[in-house]
Amino acid sequence: MAFTFQINHDVNFDHNEKLLKKTEDNRTKLHHTTVEPVDLVDIIADHSAMNGFKAVSNKNKIESLADYSLGKNGKLVLDFGDHQVGRFSINIDSVGSPMDSPLFLHLTFAETPAEIGIDANSYEGWLSSAWISEEFIHLDVLPTRLELPRRYAFRYVEIEVKDSSPKWLASFSKPIVTTESAVSLQDVPKVEIKDPELKKIDEISIKTLHDCMQEVFEDGPKRDRRLWLGDLRLQALANYKTFNNQKLVKRCLYLFGSMPTTDGKISANIFTNSNPIPDDTFMYDYSLFFISVLKDYFDNFRDTEVLNDLYPVAKKEMDLALEEVDSQGKLQPNEKWPVFVDWSNNFDKQTAGQAILIYVLKQFVELAKVQANEDAAKYQRLIEKYSNFAQKQLFDKTKGFFVSGSKQEINIASQVWMVLAHVLTDEQNKQLMTNGIKRFFPVTGIATPYMYHHIAEALFESDHQKEGIQLIKNYWGKMIQLGADTFWEAFKPEDLHFSPYGSPIINSYCHAWSCTPTYLIRKYLINE
Amino acid sequence: MAFTFQINHDVNFDHNEKLLKKTEDNRTKLHHTTVEPVDLVDIIADHSAMNGFKAVSNKNKIESLADYSLGKNGKLVLDFGDHQVGRFSINIDSVGSPMDSPLFLHLTFAETPAEIGIDANSYEGWLSSAWISEEFIHLDVLPTRLELPRRYAFRYVEIEVKDSSPKWLASFSKPIVTTESAVSLQDVPKVEIKDPELKKIDEISIKTLHDCMQEVFEDGPKRDRRLWLGDLRLQALANYKTFNNQKLVKRCLYLFGSMPTTDGKISANIFTNSNPIPDDTFMYDYSLFFISVLKDYFDNFRDTEVLNDLYPVAKKEMDLALEEVDSQGKLQPNEKWPVFVDWSNNFDKQTAGQAILIYVLKQFVELAKVQANEDAAKYQRLIEKYSNFAQKQLFDKTKGFFVSGSKQEINIASQVWMVLAHVLTDEQNKQLMTNGIKRFFPVTGIATPYMYHHIAEALFESDHQKEGIQLIKNYWGKMIQLGADTFWEAFKPEDLHFSPYGSPIINSYCHAWSCTPTYLIRKYLINE
Repeated sequence: MAFTFQINHDVNFDHNEKLLKKTEDNRTKLHHTTVEPVDLVDIIADHSAMNGFKAVSNKNKIESLADYSLGKNGKLVLDFGDHQVGRFSINIDSVGSPMDSPLFLHLTFAETPAEIGIDANSYEGWLSSAWISEEFIHLDVLPTRLELPRRYAFRYVEIEVKDSSPKWLASFSKPIVTTESAVSLQDVPKVEIKDPELKKIDEISIKTLHDCMQEVFEDGPKRDRRLWLGDLRLQALANYKTFNNQKLVKRCLYLFGSMPTTDGKISANIFTNSNPIPDDTFMYDYSLFFISVLKDYFDNFRDTEVLNDLYPVAKKEMDLALEEVDSQGKLQPNEKWPVFVDWSNNFDKQTAGQAILIYVLKQFVELAKVQANEDAAKYQRLIEKYSNFAQKQLFDKTKGFFVSGSKQEINIASQVWMVLAHVLTDEQNKQLMTNGIKRFFPVTGIATPYMYHHIAEALFESDHQKEGIQLIKNYWGKMIQLGADTFWEAFKPEDLHFSPYGSPIINSYCHAWSCTPTYLIRKYLINE
Repeated sequence: MAFTFQINHDVNFDHNEKLLKKTEDNRTKLHHTTVEPVDLVDIIADHSAMNGFKAVSNKNKIESLADYSLGKNGKLVLDFGDHQVGRFSINIDSVGSPMDSPLFLHLTFAETPAEIGIDANSYEGWLSSAWISEEFIHLDVLPTRLELPRRYAFRYVEIEVKDSSPKWLASFSKPIVTTESAVSLQDVPKVEIKDPELKKIDEISIKTLHDCMQEVFEDGPKRDRRLWLGDLRLQALANYKTFNNQKLVKRCLYLFGSMPTTDGKISANIFTNSNPIPDDTFMYDYSLFFISVLKDYFDNFRDTEVLNDLYPVAKKEMDLALEEVDSQGKLQPNEKWPVFVDWSNNFDKQTAGQAILIYVLKQFVELAKVQANEDAAKYQRLIEKYSNFAQKQLFDKTKGFFVSGSKQEINIASQVWMVLAHVLTDEQNKQLMTNGIKRFFPVTGIATPYMYHHIAEALFESDHQKEGIQLIKNYWGKMIQLGADTFWEAFKPEDLHFSPYGSPIINSYCHAWSCTPTYLIRKYLINE
């Protein structure tokens, strides 16, 4: 995920060594497979294609790759047939006279055709251009096997000879990717999904999750390659229904739980490339979701060791969150600890934040009942107080919607989160979403699968199964129609060229928070 | 050196395993030193400077390097104080928030300021742009010590942060170069050179030679980094007067001697990056110079093993060269085996080629006298025949010059090489160069130190010591005035922006064939 940059240099973090040790104890061994490309393709401009480009098989045969030698400015594009996460290697030789200069190569790794079609030099977006998956390499000696040390996420690899010399060409053979994931697709239980469209959506959700499950649950293997709490919550839910890998969730819980700020606040994300480092970015709802992830984990595994270790961290987090609520029971958002809800900052988030607080409080009380019954009653009273405030002060009975902020704004996020928090009765929830469908559908202005997930889940939770299925098909199904091998970080069905970053080449096209249809399908539609 | 590209795919090479083994037996161990930068500089455009740029010390202190953190598009230039050949390494850390993106770096290694001042993207010359000494590097984890695996030749290193992220900067510390050379500057005998200008020229000649002496005598450590016969001949001569490293010459002789074509022709150069590979480029005079290098080597070391091994190769080479001479005793140049003499193709090379043949024949006869006396008389007769032809048919007594080609062209190369071959008497030689000085000085249209060397040597050989010294000062001394740390591949005193390749960024500024002033000074001016 991405967000307005926060910089908080004055924050200090705890490092609970006992808990940090458990993050190490719960490292998973990565699975590796070897994948070869299946085709040679051309990347063609096409305005009707996602981001304006498509890949088209060309007349060259992948079996004869070594025959298509390249000189200065020569290019070819390998198609690995599906989304891959791993290390790339290839044999390179010279053809012709002896190699009288270095070989200068440019390699571009692309999840989608547009990342090759669009010139990387044109990128002027606000996210670091260092994320563009390209390498410039000089090789002094051929033949060689080029083994790139970095991990890439890609389906296509463009190989461009920036220069050889007039006396020889470069020839390529035996390209492979050695894939990496904490899990194996074979581990997913087979379930019968009769609807072929949903079946395909389920498969691609699982592939998306698979490719994001690395040494931690990453948000995206292309970018940002790190552990975000909001993504983790959804990934863990999808994981329980599919790979059901316990250790990786446990490790991630300990990572967040071992390094809150000295005040007890949990970072929105952790960098885990080397020694884990909590980011100086804080989001109110993401901090709270630590409790959600712990609750969902405990529901699945009844792991009392983890609960014993992390309940005090969860309680501290909850207490910090409660400080943002006024005496009436109303959340008063603090710009230093903003409520995320969605990328868009074009809607008021106060009521959605209130709902998320209630949603998490309810989960916390369940944990308290297991762990410290004396807490349960106290926090239960707060649920009632905040719910009561919401029902009385935030719900406009005349209009049939929750309103948000001083301008009494009616937006989809407030309704969705109030449904998920079950602040109203089931009947009222159903009516609320009936009203919501009339007012907000087809949804526009929302670019994240993260928000779409919560809309879909609210439909299922409010007895709108048909509309929930339709939303999944309209959103995730549309990505598949547009060629998705894995689900994307950002997608606006009404704007195929949308990027939150000013250029689609920096987008992540395998992104954790889009993996949830498998969870929704397997939770709400499959009788296991 | 450089040259019009030859491509000869139909040539086959011998591989004499006995001799190839000796190339391995005579490998030299490289010497290493560690050098730190001495300053931080700005590269400033200045039309009066060599290639239009100069380096100027800026207000930043190299001792505080780590304080000058760089964000997107930030740059700094390290000055290592002198020309270096070796591996570069540096510590890199992030400053600010945790590193939320890779670091994308661009490094430029420059022997001269212009290689940084001129945008590498603007290069459209005919030599491979892969020679431009730059790297583009993505680093996923900081802090790190970046240790670049390739060897560079440089004095300046520009570090450019292509991108970090808005949340952090990159900080650099402890840059070093680990230098490489087959020899140590300490090995050079101290001699007294009273003239301070010549003393400096001698020093820089030696530094140039030092930096080119690697696993073989390279033509240039920046480019082409390989063993050219024409350069080897001059390097070996300078080496005998300075480092006097026997093994390296021996190894190079065996490299050429072990891999002639199946017809016996010796390549103009050998690639030695991996298993040695003779190039498919052939030049008449360069092939002959194998004999010169063997003769000069034998004169210095009286190494009969090498002579026993390589005399048959030398004789075969000589016999092949003789096939290009007609029945009158006139060299008839063959475009498939061109006479090089100099880069310029704007003058006729037939007479210079004839002189070179006679020059080498005389050396060959000396070897024959040691090795196979029965050959000596036979080849001695050819010297007389070819010299006679030259004196009678190529020397225009009226004009006082040798003429060349069907157009009876009078050029400096013909005179110089006829002097060096001592085809005329000493008195006539002196007069010839007196005429030459009047007609050709100041020299223009010659861009190579290689040709300037032969002009200077011809002056010394023809009793024009004063003019010889003046030419050295005007040419090599001028490079020093323009900031040379080592002598250059190409230099036209009358055109400071000249490049034979269409851009000065591809030129080599430490080039073997320019190292000869130390040889000329120590041979002709110092009484040892």
